[in-house]
Amino acid sequence: MVSNSSDQKIIDSWEKNVDPWVLAVRGREIQSRVLATNPAIVDEVLAGEPKAVLDIGCGEGWLVRELAAAGVDTLGIDAIPALIASAEKAGGGRFKVLSIEDLSSHALGETFDTLVCNFSLLGKESVDQLFQLAPSLLNEGGSMIVQTVHPTAGGDERYEDAWREESWAGFIREFNNPAPWYFRTLESWVALLSSTGLKLVSLREPRHPETGRPVSIIFRSIKVSEPVDTHR
Amino acid sequence: MVSNSSDQKIIDSWEKNVDPWVLAVRGREIQSRVLATNPAIVDEVLAGEPKAVLDIGCGEGWLVRELAAAGVDTLGIDAIPALIASAEKAGGGRFKVLSIEDLSSHALGETFDTLVCNFSLLGKESVDQLFQLAPSLLNEGGSMIVQTVHPTAGGDERYEDAWREESWAGFIREFNNPAPWYFRTLESWVALLSSTGLKLVSLREPRHPETGRPVSIIFRSIKVSEPVDTHR
Repeated sequence: MVSNSSDQKIIDSWEKNVDPWVLAVRGREIQSRVLATNPAIVDEVLAGEPKAVLDIGCGEGWLVRELAAAGVDTLGIDAIPALIASAEKAGGGRFKVLSIEDLSSHALGETFDTLVCNFSLLGKESVDQLFQLAPSLLNEGGSMIVQTVHPTAGGDERYEDAWREESWAGFIREFNNPAPWYFRTLESWVALLSSTGLKLVSLREPRHPETGRPVSIIFRSIKVSEPVDTHR
Repeated sequence: MVSNSSDQKIIDSWEKNVDPWVLAVRGREIQSRVLATNPAIVDEVLAGEPKAVLDIGCGEGWLVRELAAAGVDTLGIDAIPALIASAEKAGGGRFKVLSIEDLSSHALGETFDTLVCNFSLLGKESVDQLFQLAPSLLNEGGSMIVQTVHPTAGGDERYEDAWREESWAGFIREFNNPAPWYFRTLESWVALLSSTGLKLVSLREPRHPETGRPVSIIFRSIKVSEPVDTHR
């Protein structure tokens, strides 16, 4: 059950937008994804040479399929049943309907070398919850990789953590309902990542190949051993 | 001796600009500093409750004086003799002429709880060198704190690591010679910080109090114990 009302609105909105979304992704209609952010996230995940990956918010499944084709055992989860249905129809990976709220290593019965969240961390409480949970889903030395819209690259909106609405402007086909998402500043993302106990090791900024401007940001954090207290 | 020609140009330019710079700082003429970045860096340093601080590129000494007044033993170093002379004239702290190129714990005979670099990391090779050196200057659990112009908050220049020129536009009084400085992307700053072995724990974005836009970025990294390999 999703308890927070704005996190619930995200799910409601996406449930109404499954069909145009699947078409937009599979038709390669989202320029920034095709030109920059898709190859960037694939490279980032594969750079760690993981054996087992969890794609959190996998949508219609493109990334799961691509990683599986590269030989990585990949499970994709998403809260939207119709998206998982479309993913399973296309095949090429393992898929499961599961929301972040219901996620745990117990619910899945497995842990992973890499957790990847590709533009899927849209909520507020659910994202806070996921970050607390993440270390328990990871093997030692494993990575959590998050790609999100670049917090500071352009835009006139006030620079503070707040709910925003995705207007779907710039998409070719029609979407219903503005989809809410929770904007976080760069400072807030780093604080959240630090709070997990994971170690932030890199931050990449995929650029638009024509403008050279950053379109997204990719954080990589790793699960490291706790240092031993030498005074014990 | 400074070997790299562009890092040398930075020093040459600053040597010519000591007088207007000292007047601008002490006359509280630099709006972003007065309104945002000065209080931000003081707060960030004091938050760690350090006993001994090294201000790298301390200029005319304002930050050393402010920290010393708060009870922190602070040493300020700068490559420009005329700036150190003006700092010593104003007093209120310990000062020494020393460039990053000549810096080492051996050269100073002491180590520190905190290294602070307030808009002072302008060069290329010198900065790379400082980051390699930093852990040897820090006590266990110590912090390296760097404030720099926000890499991605506005600006039309191409988003890539490259030499730029400080035009001094917006300053009330006259400066000579454009001062070169080496711009790094956010990605490059984080990679550099990671390469030191220090752990990046927070990233702050001081905002202009009227526009709400970020004016600078402050990185804090700490020196932590190495984890023990449990398989040994």
